[in-house]
Amino acid sequence: MESTKILLDESEIPQAWYNIQADLPEPMPPALHPGTREPIGPEDLAPLFPAALIEQEVSQERWIEIPDEVRSVYALWRPSPLYRARRLEKALKTPARIYYKWEGVSPSGSHKPNTAVAQAFYNREEGIKRIATETGAGQWGTALSFACGLFDLECMVYMVKISFDQKPYRKAIIETYGGTVVASPSTQTEAGRQILAQDPDSPGSLGIAISEAIEDAASREDTHYALGSVLNHVLLHQTVIGMEAELQLQKAGEALPDVAVGCFGGGSNFAGFAFPFMRHRLDHDKDDLRIVACEPASCPTLTKGEYRYDFGDAVGMTPLMPMHTLGHGFVPAPVHAGGLRYHGAAPLVSHLLQGNHLEAKAYQQLECFEAGVQFARSEGIVPAPEANHVIKGAVDEAIRCRETGEEQVIAFNLCGHGHFDMAAYAAYFAGDLEKHEFTGQMLDENMKELSELPTM
Amino acid sequence: MESTKILLDESEIPQAWYNIQADLPEPMPPALHPGTREPIGPEDLAPLFPAALIEQEVSQERWIEIPDEVRSVYALWRPSPLYRARRLEKALKTPARIYYKWEGVSPSGSHKPNTAVAQAFYNREEGIKRIATETGAGQWGTALSFACGLFDLECMVYMVKISFDQKPYRKAIIETYGGTVVASPSTQTEAGRQILAQDPDSPGSLGIAISEAIEDAASREDTHYALGSVLNHVLLHQTVIGMEAELQLQKAGEALPDVAVGCFGGGSNFAGFAFPFMRHRLDHDKDDLRIVACEPASCPTLTKGEYRYDFGDAVGMTPLMPMHTLGHGFVPAPVHAGGLRYHGAAPLVSHLLQGNHLEAKAYQQLECFEAGVQFARSEGIVPAPEANHVIKGAVDEAIRCRETGEEQVIAFNLCGHGHFDMAAYAAYFAGDLEKHEFTGQMLDENMKELSELPTM
Repeated sequence: MESTKILLDESEIPQAWYNIQADLPEPMPPALHPGTREPIGPEDLAPLFPAALIEQEVSQERWIEIPDEVRSVYALWRPSPLYRARRLEKALKTPARIYYKWEGVSPSGSHKPNTAVAQAFYNREEGIKRIATETGAGQWGTALSFACGLFDLECMVYMVKISFDQKPYRKAIIETYGGTVVASPSTQTEAGRQILAQDPDSPGSLGIAISEAIEDAASREDTHYALGSVLNHVLLHQTVIGMEAELQLQKAGEALPDVAVGCFGGGSNFAGFAFPFMRHRLDHDKDDLRIVACEPASCPTLTKGEYRYDFGDAVGMTPLMPMHTLGHGFVPAPVHAGGLRYHGAAPLVSHLLQGNHLEAKAYQQLECFEAGVQFARSEGIVPAPEANHVIKGAVDEAIRCRETGEEQVIAFNLCGHGHFDMAAYAAYFAGDLEKHEFTGQMLDENMKELSELPTM
Repeated sequence: MESTKILLDESEIPQAWYNIQADLPEPMPPALHPGTREPIGPEDLAPLFPAALIEQEVSQERWIEIPDEVRSVYALWRPSPLYRARRLEKALKTPARIYYKWEGVSPSGSHKPNTAVAQAFYNREEGIKRIATETGAGQWGTALSFACGLFDLECMVYMVKISFDQKPYRKAIIETYGGTVVASPSTQTEAGRQILAQDPDSPGSLGIAISEAIEDAASREDTHYALGSVLNHVLLHQTVIGMEAELQLQKAGEALPDVAVGCFGGGSNFAGFAFPFMRHRLDHDKDDLRIVACEPASCPTLTKGEYRYDFGDAVGMTPLMPMHTLGHGFVPAPVHAGGLRYHGAAPLVSHLLQGNHLEAKAYQQLECFEAGVQFARSEGIVPAPEANHVIKGAVDEAIRCRETGEEQVIAFNLCGHGHFDMAAYAAYFAGDLEKHEFTGQMLDENMKELSELPTM
């Protein structure tokens, strides 16, 4: 019998995270203080994050040791399996060999606990009692609630209202893990109340929810803030995905992949999978190893955003970060891939895109669901709507190989299951998925707001 | 780092199913034809099942080879992991060592595909184009839809109405896999129309849905029927669970468990896990290996049902089977563990209960959800409401060990996740879970209907 999945032992959970900052060809532009517009220092972040994470945010060390207590929680689901997608290959009649890393085996069903557990651990180590955060599709809020429970921390989640309404059962699972969740914009913060005053029916956005969570954390001594993507330390924690995948590909008898594909929202699942492979481009000049990021056409941060300084949140409380952005005032269309609706891109990924170390592609949700359903019917797993973007990207690469006859290795990161997103599948089968383009006019309008901000 | 889970290679997927019929101390009473009341023969079942499954239903061979094509589909998720529940042990302060087999890693999220895949395979081998079935909680319908898709069969699912309404997303996932699903009682069959004429608001029952699916299958040449539990061949296919678990316990350095626990509805997940362990009782007189079945107090088939001949469905179309039953007319209270709401118990399990080879316990849903939430907060996995019954049973055993100081090994089968059951968790947190007792009076009333049936 041909093997279907490549498993690793618990002893093969990586001992250290891979910090790509050590290998950047050019240094990153610094983040700027939102008030002074000067480069921020650790003291500016101390009200929000524990010292260990602030250190990781700027560290230039290539390997950062994973604490034993974190690895021991990782062992509840890690190492995650790497699958050879034999049935999908057959369905696509492609000569390519397709592999996918399956992060949906985590308790909360996505890659998010990889960083949630680390963040909860470092906060507990520093004596923090409570963490406030935002969540888009709900994956991050669920993961942080799970992680906080294991480290005896309270967890307060501001959930983007459109997703809160679309996915009522996210509330139940966040509560099952012991967390608290409210729809954002909420009346619990000044930021939320401001937005509601302007638009009582606001569907919310990740930017708005971030503003609320930061305000909550900044206003309470016992509370820190946690972000589920974008920041360097978050991307760092996710690199366990790619490191395991690289080892698994070796065990499957493969060299490096020809193409590594990830879906792109804020950047963490993408980077977690891709950075360990990108190391071979940066360190060893393997320029033929292609790295592809797949984002929604309705929120095309990488493909249409401008590379410049912008705020991470909607109202301008965060440091200014150098990133590809659609403008911090942008409220994306309510497509079902809630986890990919964010106006900015992780600074690290943005920086690497500037250096042409990855390609970016944008897809409509309808074609993504088509690919996702084909995947479910071949491989069995029902993917999250976010993950359908990477499947669409991988399928496109496989079809290219069918046309050229190339026996390439395509590897992608299947970041989570769609069990809490079945309303989206129901909408797909009912023919109700809308097309949302992001236009040049929308970009121009959003960019007006940014005219006062420093440029690089 | 102490190990958390015990994994096996794909090559360790069992080569054969374990058929407990070979080891029964006493022969089983035969199933009877519903019309003639004589023992049924293979020809009576041929309109519903392929010959290979009819053969398995009565086979006395101890080992029945698993076809390669079935094992190759199993490899999409099998061997499933066996976990050491270290965090739960700590939370319970028990000296017991608790292990759980995790069947929720299957594509459809429960143990059900173990038999769905086998049944779809044998039907395809016999040239069948379409399978009709019933589903309670939705786990079985999802599993069969998944399996039928892989073998190019159409799948028609009659889903118990109360569950259909409680779990709208089950429809979406069944459709994602390519199946069709209607609420039962439906207007599509004579059986359904009869029930609706008596009670237009009938919440349905597994018995009613079985009647509909059988009628559908019997009335079409291209269609067979598939049952997700109860029958001997279904229990047989599930024995991969217990066989893997036994090997995994050995690899963890354990001998056999002191107590093996399963939740009990129709009997398939229970038997699949317990029968390979029970073999050691039957074959090697290991009478100190305790086997415990946990069922809902609202549908206490094993603890309060009578052992006698009864129909498997609600209207009397199936063969008469020797089993513990609450009466085929019994419509259980709408508790959230939909998969455990069935009036009868698998004949094999009933027969073994008569021989005192297992213990049965009944639990209220409230105490089961309490145990399930404690489990989620320690181990991360959110269990299906059905699985909360076995967790409650295992927790009780662990507490007993705490009180006696015994370092026993408790092993249980965690048969599925609760991702499609979050409405039940929401009801639990809202304090809305009702208590449902099954009374002696209810039993007496149900048994009146059975007075005409043959006795053993």
